Amino acid sequence: MAVGISPDEHAARRERLRAHCSANGLSGYVLFDEHLIRYFAGFTYLATERPVAFVGTTQGDELVFVPEFEVERIQAETAFGRIESYVEYPGREHPMHVLARVLDGLGMRAPVGASSDGYPGILGYSGPPLSEAIGGDVAPLGEFAERLLVRKSAAEIELIRESGRWCAYAHRLLQRYSTPGTTEADASLRAAHEATVAMARELGGSYGQQASSDGASAGYRGQIGRRSAWAHAVAHAIEFRPGDVLVSETSAPVHGYNAELERAMVIGEPTGEMEVLFGHMLGARQVAFDTLRPGVTCAEVDGAVLAYFEEHDLLPYWKQHTGHAIGLRNHEAPFLDVGDHTPVEAGMVFTIEPGVYDSSLGGFRHSDTVAVTPDGIDVLTDYPTALDELTIL
Amino acid sequence: MAVGISPDEHAARRERLRAHCSANGLSGYVLFDEHLIRYFAGFTYLATERPVAFVGTTQGDELVFVPEFEVERIQAETAFGRIESYVEYPGREHPMHVLARVLDGLGMRAPVGASSDGYPGILGYSGPPLSEAIGGDVAPLGEFAERLLVRKSAAEIELIRESGRWCAYAHRLLQRYSTPGTTEADASLRAAHEATVAMARELGGSYGQQASSDGASAGYRGQIGRRSAWAHAVAHAIEFRPGDVLVSETSAPVHGYNAELERAMVIGEPTGEMEVLFGHMLGARQVAFDTLRPGVTCAEVDGAVLAYFEEHDLLPYWKQHTGHAIGLRNHEAPFLDVGDHTPVEAGMVFTIEPGVYDSSLGGFRHSDTVAVTPDGIDVLTDYPTALDELTIL
Repeated sequence: MAVGISPDEHAARRERLRAHCSANGLSGYVLFDEHLIRYFAGFTYLATERPVAFVGTTQGDELVFVPEFEVERIQAETAFGRIESYVEYPGREHPMHVLARVLDGLGMRAPVGASSDGYPGILGYSGPPLSEAIGGDVAPLGEFAERLLVRKSAAEIELIRESGRWCAYAHRLLQRYSTPGTTEADASLRAAHEATVAMARELGGSYGQQASSDGASAGYRGQIGRRSAWAHAVAHAIEFRPGDVLVSETSAPVHGYNAELERAMVIGEPTGEMEVLFGHMLGARQVAFDTLRPGVTCAEVDGAVLAYFEEHDLLPYWKQHTGHAIGLRNHEAPFLDVGDHTPVEAGMVFTIEPGVYDSSLGGFRHSDTVAVTPDGIDVLTDYPTALDELTIL
Repeated sequence: MAVGISPDEHAARRERLRAHCSANGLSGYVLFDEHLIRYFAGFTYLATERPVAFVGTTQGDELVFVPEFEVERIQAETAFGRIESYVEYPGREHPMHVLARVLDGLGMRAPVGASSDGYPGILGYSGPPLSEAIGGDVAPLGEFAERLLVRKSAAEIELIRESGRWCAYAHRLLQRYSTPGTTEADASLRAAHEATVAMARELGGSYGQQASSDGASAGYRGQIGRRSAWAHAVAHAIEFRPGDVLVSETSAPVHGYNAELERAMVIGEPTGEMEVLFGHMLGARQVAFDTLRPGVTCAEVDGAVLAYFEEHDLLPYWKQHTGHAIGLRNHEAPFLDVGDHTPVEAGMVFTIEPGVYDSSLGGFRHSDTVAVTPDGIDVLTDYPTALDELTIL
């Protein structure tokens, strides 16, 4: 369980990238983005201002380019055959010039493919574009790479399902601790802590934990009471009160893969008005579940949900599109949005989260994560959906 | 305490940006970066693929541009006079085109200043460059803005000091729980949880918590035993054993501002070899403390530390430069590095963290956060530094 992506699958992904470069007259690729490096090479690291790159040539040579202090760890923890390094960033010689020499040594001549024209400017990094450092053209690879990410393999879907299990675990604790008189901070910190300890205990070191504090999280991001109608808020140390509508959020990456599980809940007996809006949220959600399948477009799914809102005179309660893709990033393209005409394919994974928001009452949103199958969907998050099971008394 | 940055200070920052645009023939500025929007406008939000921008004209008009669902929250929680919004991303009309119309309505003609030429491609976002959307030139503002961030105000330094206090609080717990037989995951989760609860209790909602799980963290990122020599590692559920050398890390953002506090520690009686390397780490650290002051360059500080390594035949144990600036981001430019010739000025805040790394024994690194004063430094992190106080028996 949760053993991660196999070296063979990583190699097959890189082969597709190599073939793409070959077909487009590029001598190879340079990946600077940490999610893409994780996706294609299975390599994880603390991304900082010190450039890291994964390089492959169309001839099949591969190497990882890192600051010198990463070399021992890479030798101990990866099977990479070749590591090139630089002393430090910015250093006496800028790492981008060291990289240019490494590419030259590999026989990589312009044009070269790259996830971006140079290392992105994170955490204070600055440096020359790669095209300047190599004195030649760099072709963007981002769009091609993103297209590969969109269709998940069976192994990826299992990791997202495992993430969904831990989201549900954290959510059960959150629901239990969200009682009148306690605060959001208390309930969410307690739930997140206990769920993370349980994850660490059951999965051991095998779930790809990055930072010491990585694990499950669960909370409300301030979406409590009437603030639940804000769709996104930021956290507040709000005390729960009878009559509050809640919109939760959970997260529990497994080997970097994310599911998303959110639930509308009510503290105390729901009013009739709440029941009506909650019911419509379930109705809109069902429309998305029924519509999403290979062959439709993302826009058609969102259009069907919007049609539900129109039919039931709910447009004043509409705030956000139906959902987004999810995987190594917690939001990914494509989007279940009237403006996104990407055809839906088997292997895509989406959140389904149409919400019904009433400023004077609160917001009602469930979010589930679903994989598209050849003839419909497979729901990867398993948690009660009915109002009576989401009422906190 | 921890009341955050005042509206006046935010206004003064924006005034500098406005003046810069005016002096450079730009009709105004568009900020897309969440840290810059927080810095100049004090506005915090969940940054996703949905574009958010803060806009100011040289005439003094200002507005925030957000997805429609953010409007109610902004009205309730900020004093912004003008909010413009778009329905959804990507939506029927792409937000970048809506923004172009808003800029036109403000009378903002090209050239316009912007933190980047369009919204950055985070979490699946894609869209036209701003220059394409407005059909005119966009001048990069990032470098100018970053230069402002580098010199911290008294209020910013106090927030970093407050962050440093909570780092120390979390570190005391971490040190207490890191006993032989327990694991990194247990100790760090327990310390982070208790410190975060204490932060929430003492600071209430007033420390700018963003996500429900935000707060203090403390751990080792896998830098335990010989892995402590790796300078950066990733977390492992490693059991502590007598003889282990540890390198810790802590974090506790307050209104977004970060201090960094790390300590080398030893479980059980240190060997003579450990004492020698630990002593040299303290020696190199003291050189940095003594050298850092207005008038020297960042490179000179790192050069002085390197000279200490050379003098004592320690170059084989050197792995990383002396430190980095820190503030709203946990790493910022400039860097205390032989390749960074930025002159040091009062108000800059740096980490001081020269380390002595021995692959066969472990790594020794303290990291402290210091503000540069007119005649030296003010240490913002207060935690024991001597080996006998960092020995876990």
